[in-house]
Amino acid sequence: MPQISLADLNAAGKADFVAALANVVEYSPWIAEKLAEQRPFAGINQLHTALMAAIQSAEPDVQLVLIRAHPDLANKTQRAAGLTAESTDEQNSAGLDRLSDAEYAAFERVNSAYRDKFGFPYIVCVRRHTKDSVLRDFETRLRNIAKTETRRAIEEIGRISALRLDQLVIADDKLKVHGRLSTHVLDNHAGKPASGIAVELIELANLGASRVIARTVTNADGRTDQPLIGGRPLPIGRYELRFSIGKYYAERGVQTPDPPFLDEIPLRFAISEPEGHYHVPLLVTPWSYSTYRGS
Amino acid sequence: MPQISLADLNAAGKADFVAALANVVEYSPWIAEKLAEQRPFAGINQLHTALMAAIQSAEPDVQLVLIRAHPDLANKTQRAAGLTAESTDEQNSAGLDRLSDAEYAAFERVNSAYRDKFGFPYIVCVRRHTKDSVLRDFETRLRNIAKTETRRAIEEIGRISALRLDQLVIADDKLKVHGRLSTHVLDNHAGKPASGIAVELIELANLGASRVIARTVTNADGRTDQPLIGGRPLPIGRYELRFSIGKYYAERGVQTPDPPFLDEIPLRFAISEPEGHYHVPLLVTPWSYSTYRGS
Amino acid sequence: MPQISLADLNAAGKADFVAALANVVEYSPWIAEKLAEQRPFAGINQLHTALMAAIQSAEPDVQLVLIRAHPDLANKTQRAAGLTAESTDEQNSAGLDRLSDAEYAAFERVNSAYRDKFGFPYIVCVRRHTKDSVLRDFETRLRNIAKTETRRAIEEIGRISALRLDQLVIADDKLKVHGRLSTHVLDNHAGKPASGIAVELIELANLGASRVIARTVTNADGRTDQPLIGGRPLPIGRYELRFSIGKYYAERGVQTPDPPFLDEIPLRFAISEPEGHYHVPLLVTPWSYSTYRGS
Amino acid sequence: MPQISLADLNAAGKADFVAALANVVEYSPWIAEKLAEQRPFAGINQLHTALMAAIQSAEPDVQLVLIRAHPDLANKTQRAAGLTAESTDEQNSAGLDRLSDAEYAAFERVNSAYRDKFGFPYIVCVRRHTKDSVLRDFETRLRNIAKTETRRAIEEIGRISALRLDQLVIADDKLKVHGRLSTHVLDNHAGKPASGIAVELIELANLGASRVIARTVTNADGRTDQPLIGGRPLPIGRYELRFSIGKYYAERGVQTPDPPFLDEIPLRFAISEPEGHYHVPLLVTPWSYSTYRGS
Repeated sequence: MPQISLADLNAAGKADFVAALANVVEYSPWIAEKLAEQRPFAGINQLHTALMAAIQSAEPDVQLVLIRAHPDLANKTQRAAGLTAESTDEQNSAGLDRLSDAEYAAFERVNSAYRDKFGFPYIVCVRRHTKDSVLRDFETRLRNIAKTETRRAIEEIGRISALRLDQLVIADDKLKVHGRLSTHVLDNHAGKPASGIAVELIELANLGASRVIARTVTNADGRTDQPLIGGRPLPIGRYELRFSIGKYYAERGVQTPDPPFLDEIPLRFAISEPEGHYHVPLLVTPWSYSTYRGS
Repeated sequence: MPQISLADLNAAGKADFVAALANVVEYSPWIAEKLAEQRPFAGINQLHTALMAAIQSAEPDVQLVLIRAHPDLANKTQRAAGLTAESTDEQNSAGLDRLSDAEYAAFERVNSAYRDKFGFPYIVCVRRHTKDSVLRDFETRLRNIAKTETRRAIEEIGRISALRLDQLVIADDKLKVHGRLSTHVLDNHAGKPASGIAVELIELANLGASRVIARTVTNADGRTDQPLIGGRPLPIGRYELRFSIGKYYAERGVQTPDPPFLDEIPLRFAISEPEGHYHVPLLVTPWSYSTYRGS
Repeated sequence: MPQISLADLNAAGKADFVAALANVVEYSPWIAEKLAEQRPFAGINQLHTALMAAIQSAEPDVQLVLIRAHPDLANKTQRAAGLTAESTDEQNSAGLDRLSDAEYAAFERVNSAYRDKFGFPYIVCVRRHTKDSVLRDFETRLRNIAKTETRRAIEEIGRISALRLDQLVIADDKLKVHGRLSTHVLDNHAGKPASGIAVELIELANLGASRVIARTVTNADGRTDQPLIGGRPLPIGRYELRFSIGKYYAERGVQTPDPPFLDEIPLRFAISEPEGHYHVPLLVTPWSYSTYRGS
Repeated sequence: MPQISLADLNAAGKADFVAALANVVEYSPWIAEKLAEQRPFAGINQLHTALMAAIQSAEPDVQLVLIRAHPDLANKTQRAAGLTAESTDEQNSAGLDRLSDAEYAAFERVNSAYRDKFGFPYIVCVRRHTKDSVLRDFETRLRNIAKTETRRAIEEIGRISALRLDQLVIADDKLKVHGRLSTHVLDNHAGKPASGIAVELIELANLGASRVIARTVTNADGRTDQPLIGGRPLPIGRYELRFSIGKYYAERGVQTPDPPFLDEIPLRFAISEPEGHYHVPLLVTPWSYSTYRGS
């Protein structure tokens, strides 16, 4: 996606400014028009704050139009008719393009129930979610009253627009929209970082199949060269890290029984803070291991 | 199964003695006849040692007849024709009565290969094994020379007969034929044993499906009232313990995020010593856990 | 000390009964006289409950005489004049016979302050304390009102008499007056209990010098043959366990640097429940260790 | 100390170059003279390698003069007569300026024994040592043959000169002469870094008194703003870290007994690699803790 600097946005003609921000909030150029007059912005956080103020100070009926401009999640007909490129990417990031028929049916059921109750589509920042957590969120929010859901919808539009701005605009400051999942393997048998350990990250699913979302190998410091998840929000959900420990000790000539007491070690945990830092290390010997939420 | 005391065995008439021990070694009453003359036995260990000495001092052709008297593993035709009750129980204990067609095929392949190479059936003490470890053992032993396999077959007959004696004869001493798998959950958040934790033990399988082999709940001391496996050899294989930690902390009112960082904790390990004691404890908080091979 | 069975106490003449229990409560035969009439006692717990009921139902002035019959703690003049054998043993158990001049001065100061404020001596069950914890308790209780201290004094007389009964009377049931301190060393480098580890238990002192109160060696199961403290209350106080790990690994030929990263490992902890079970294990490799309050 | 850039050293007149490096090796300007002709040096590592080559390729009698130009350790007479500023600083860094009379006597004894045996002073890079480890090194090396000690003396001169160059010369590359000791406290009870924990680092001494060499407080990430030791070699020796855990949990309102099970936690370890990175973290709850050599 082409990016634009905040300086250029501040200096642009009004029409160019509005065009540049066209897709930050779905089908709602009036927001960008309002922001154009408040320039210059000192940073991207100030820009996003102004955007949210514009939405929050709008009349209720204008807010409702804004909310209704959003597509349903995982709706086949709408997908066929064409979503904005941003919506498509976001829905795909949570796997909503890979739903089985049964899963489609589940989403359609909640979508309809939600529309029937509130008169507007369920809006959620899907980049912060897995399929499972979207469905759980759906069920929780379906129990709310309409006023709460209007507020929640605007909150989610805020999160969606923040992520879109983060991808679009180059600025000196950063929006706090990314999380980080990292690991570290310490070999307490040798008193050293454990390098060369194969690591897999699996996203566990109630709905549909679990799937490997990262495969890597620990480096000389027992860490991975890249975070397991980084540069984006951490999708709320359940995960499993798997470490090939048996192979590691076998290659180092450490005597272990056949089969080894520990071979592939699974660490199962959940992420609830998409913008948080989750450090999930493994301290290991051929006979013991520990993990904890680190920092 | 009816049991008999060692004292009664020592005092019995020869015919009764031979009848009582008839099924300790498959179709080989000559062993019991030899043992009858060596009475009285001071203990069950002495009895078993004499049994093994009888086999080991027999002529090679007698040993071969003994070995050939054993059935194939997981052989449908032989099962239909009828195995000894002991063989049936033992084969079932390792799940050989629950094989899929593909698994039967796998067993038949190795059975035939083994018979073709050595001229006698593959003998293994199946109570010390899972389906997976039997197949691995098979493949390892298939690479041996005939002399080694004659020795290995007699060793396995020794283990089978020891377990049969252990079930049949009541004596003051015990044969060392049982292992023990136990656990213990310590709540390091509260500084107390964790009671009321649901625990599952799963036998993991490459061949066919993994299955839950024990379900229990920790008691006031954080232990289980009965060992997870006890009173028998521990089948060589891979296992997973699962502990419902999320529910435990939720019930105690400990504040955790939604979803909780730790919910169901899996500990995956292998057993390689069927007569060993495996203590696999869990030290846990809502944010960390450790395990180790304990004692 | 000679012991007597509960059956014999139940059957004894009144004078013998009173004589047998003479020193269970200091200089107060009236209590035993009262108990004599309530015989037979089904167990030692019932006997002690009756004893406490006798004291608690006595008139306030009788209670005061009882309280005043107790000696001061660590009072040189009274010790010279002669305490009951029981009081002497108890005071010595907390090291009150080994006070430096400065410590005597500290005890005399609080003794006098207490007597001045309440008109009776400070009573505490010293077997449940170290010198440090007695002084802390003293300071806390000095801030109470007289009514509270009368109640507290009777509580402590209850604990003292329970311990004296426990030593004197043989019964089928047990008073819950003993605690237990134990340890266990697991070698996570080898996956086995660590046997042959030298262990020291030190009572840490603010007042005066810390001192080694137990020296032992771990057995084949990584435990000590006897509890580190057992068969008595655990004195409230601060402790340090020291484990000679460097020597253990050196003797087993495990390669470690010079000097080894871990050599003597100190675990420092406090005991606050004299009748509790404190299990303080050590999980260790040459490069790591853990401890926790176990069970 | 004034510093000079490598570029300036490369460009300097020969006399200035020799003067600048005058004190890198004690009283031996011939080395700098030799190096002057090999300029320019691409980096500080190349400069130090050339310096060591100059010494190693010198005639044995020249090497001996160089070795004999070094002072005795902890020699009162020599200190009174005046050491080079560099020697004084280095000896003080290991506490050799704070020796008791008994310690002086110990050093004089080994100094004399060493001089008597080898005919030259014992040379060691004291910045890599504590008093205790110097004495241990002394005793080990006293058992060597002269040839070994000539080699060892030159090695130590190499280490001393590397540290002096590191302080004197500004270059783009760095000599690998520094180590780092760091810690990190994770609160596994709260699932967060433990901030605000008071930490002390004690250098433990056999010879003379142990002393606190750093006092600090953990920051928001549970780490210390500065490494506990950094920017210099880590002195070989035994250390204890002390963490005030009781106060930390009390301030956070976590319920603990009185006295708390864990209050001040000591971690005792040794450093054997002066140029290594020692990370010694603490994972803690009110009821448990772990440590390990991390990275």
